[in-house]
Amino acid sequence: MPTYSSISFLTDYGLEDGFVAACHGVLARTAPEARVLDVSHLVPPGDVRRGAMVLAQTVRYLPPSVHLAVVDPGVGTARRAVALEAGDGILVGPDNGLLVWAAEVLGGPRRVHVLENASLWVQPVASTFHGRDLFAPVAGHLARGLDLAQVGPPLDPAQLVRLPQPVTRMTDGVLEAEVTTIDRFGNVQLAAPATVMPELRLALGDTMVVEHGGTEVVGTYGETFGSVPPGELLLHHDSSGLLGLALNGGSAAARLGVRPGMLVRLRVPAAESLADAPVPTEPEDG
Amino acid sequence: MPTYSSISFLTDYGLEDGFVAACHGVLARTAPEARVLDVSHLVPPGDVRRGAMVLAQTVRYLPPSVHLAVVDPGVGTARRAVALEAGDGILVGPDNGLLVWAAEVLGGPRRVHVLENASLWVQPVASTFHGRDLFAPVAGHLARGLDLAQVGPPLDPAQLVRLPQPVTRMTDGVLEAEVTTIDRFGNVQLAAPATVMPELRLALGDTMVVEHGGTEVVGTYGETFGSVPPGELLLHHDSSGLLGLALNGGSAAARLGVRPGMLVRLRVPAAESLADAPVPTEPEDG
Amino acid sequence: MPTYSSISFLTDYGLEDGFVAACHGVLARTAPEARVLDVSHLVPPGDVRRGAMVLAQTVRYLPPSVHLAVVDPGVGTARRAVALEAGDGILVGPDNGLLVWAAEVLGGPRRVHVLENASLWVQPVASTFHGRDLFAPVAGHLARGLDLAQVGPPLDPAQLVRLPQPVTRMTDGVLEAEVTTIDRFGNVQLAAPATVMPELRLALGDTMVVEHGGTEVVGTYGETFGSVPPGELLLHHDSSGLLGLALNGGSAAARLGVRPGMLVRLRVPAAESLADAPVPTEPEDG
Repeated sequence: MPTYSSISFLTDYGLEDGFVAACHGVLARTAPEARVLDVSHLVPPGDVRRGAMVLAQTVRYLPPSVHLAVVDPGVGTARRAVALEAGDGILVGPDNGLLVWAAEVLGGPRRVHVLENASLWVQPVASTFHGRDLFAPVAGHLARGLDLAQVGPPLDPAQLVRLPQPVTRMTDGVLEAEVTTIDRFGNVQLAAPATVMPELRLALGDTMVVEHGGTEVVGTYGETFGSVPPGELLLHHDSSGLLGLALNGGSAAARLGVRPGMLVRLRVPAAESLADAPVPTEPEDG
Repeated sequence: MPTYSSISFLTDYGLEDGFVAACHGVLARTAPEARVLDVSHLVPPGDVRRGAMVLAQTVRYLPPSVHLAVVDPGVGTARRAVALEAGDGILVGPDNGLLVWAAEVLGGPRRVHVLENASLWVQPVASTFHGRDLFAPVAGHLARGLDLAQVGPPLDPAQLVRLPQPVTRMTDGVLEAEVTTIDRFGNVQLAAPATVMPELRLALGDTMVVEHGGTEVVGTYGETFGSVPPGELLLHHDSSGLLGLALNGGSAAARLGVRPGMLVRLRVPAAESLADAPVPTEPEDG
Repeated sequence: MPTYSSISFLTDYGLEDGFVAACHGVLARTAPEARVLDVSHLVPPGDVRRGAMVLAQTVRYLPPSVHLAVVDPGVGTARRAVALEAGDGILVGPDNGLLVWAAEVLGGPRRVHVLENASLWVQPVASTFHGRDLFAPVAGHLARGLDLAQVGPPLDPAQLVRLPQPVTRMTDGVLEAEVTTIDRFGNVQLAAPATVMPELRLALGDTMVVEHGGTEVVGTYGETFGSVPPGELLLHHDSSGLLGLALNGGSAAARLGVRPGMLVRLRVPAAESLADAPVPTEPEDG
């Protein structure tokens, strides 16, 4: 098996405690030659969906790696622990959907094995800290070239637990899409790939309307934050190839009042409504 | 002296400023071959006790290292700066109790020297930033194999400043224990080692009662978060070998209303009180 | 051209998302031998001035490096992207003033080139993520020894965008200085270098008065936090060679009610006012 000089690492452990460092320590003991690249440890506690999205959107930019990811509200229960071979990497973590989207970005899970070979683990295994005692040492051994088959019995990739796909649908020229993430700047990412734009019949520079919870905000389809005046809404292709909503110099999330998991609707404004309302419209209390 | 390929690093400097990076820079200049492993830099400002606990609970999982730790509200005063040899590592930091618990985990401080050899320091030494100018360069030199005796004169390990031990006592079958830490998930760690369980006369699956500030919450002694129904309290052995309180799918700290340093009482419920109250009991305003 | 074994990295990307990790990934792919040293990723969103200060105060402690810095509210607009040679390092980032103060600490920008050689970039370049697609790969190539002239055409260093210098002026024995940063401990850094002290006619141990927004707080000019009693204000030389205000055991920023960008006035107290008020004075509602 190949060795990996890089191990990526994502958790919901936070940075206040020594949890992340204990895992780094186990990795350094198991695979001292590998560089550990932290993806994020600030996934909201137990938010598997968010962890899966962050990993999937980052993984294509990482070098060939063992990707260790632990967002694991079911730690210590019967949920499986797995290692997946996909593209030029291996993903290690709980079988709760966390790894599958990233595996698909890498080309899809080729081989899956269930972590059952306890001789690889840090003993005794704490029932509440599989990241340190089970996933990290297995990731380290795989980085050193251990064959995937040594971690435990194979699993049909079709048996992997999968998260529901984010909602995105086009009906009568209206795009309805789930908010997948909101970043530190208040930029809103939608589940819809930028490739839906022709179907929306919007060209660069066109006006469009975003609706959420009864609030309509008029914006412009453009290329970058500077394409619209300060304080105005921009629809653009974000850095992950998805549609994004941004406010030049502000927070689109606050302006629209959205959080991850909510749905927004995008459409070309009706001709008369634009004539009536050439400036962005919102409810009085907006 | 041996060289160390790893330097661990814990502070209360936070991540907003360049303080941690300046120390990383000094380490990289002094010991360019060593890998620096961040334990945490989010210890609450000046909270030596918390820093000491995080370090002590993490250090056994780290590779042989120079452990650089700086939580130092007395920086620039007469408090000593020390380096301790313990187990397969060396600890460097202020002599305020921060290092001693970790040294004991590693086997106890074998040799202690006071940092007085100013030729090792970054000059001029800022009186408010000994982490960068004094502790980091000494840690780097020690990682490169400098003998401990070169950092300054020896100190009798018995002279080291020690923090008060966290409270834990068993009286008439009631365990009284200090809350040592609360993690990002709201899990409550108690000072009591899991080895007190036989004395509490609790077996796995048994019901128990936790009392704090007049509030009693009934829970179960189990193995992992999934051992109790959602929203119920679990008493378990945590990943550091101490007793922990967790709420399946929620925050035990919020449910119990506790913070680090507070005392909780654990006991087997009286037979009649259980009969009266088969469901968890709390005050009306709980 | 020399190669660099170190790449420093500062952004306002935060740590919740995978943005920082994607850049780390691009750096690891482009310059696998270089160590990446994170300066901070918690610069407030879009706060170029703060990013420039953190970088300038940290850079002298870093090893010879390519310094990659991205606080870039104008990403995707016509602002230039540049690489600067200064001292023993190269700085890479947007031409918005972020890099210039650090370049001056390193000895001043010797050569500047504009990033226009698109063959070095990650394609396709996302118009909202030049950190990942443009700055990081160029920084990586420069770390591997690419000549600065290969990144694009030269620019006269005098043409670089510069931020306004922080305010600091001495009038009739009163020092007026801008608050440059407030750290995690509530310590207040002023724009004034410690070298102004003789002009203020203050000697170590002297009493002084700080005034902001009508509030006057009496303090002492001393060497370190322990030079004043708990709860009292200290004026000292901070670890960056600037004047700092600290409260022994508390937050000077909270006591004075200041934020970065505000002005404070420092002076020797008038003899009579000290006689009237030997203890620190504040408004009743202070």
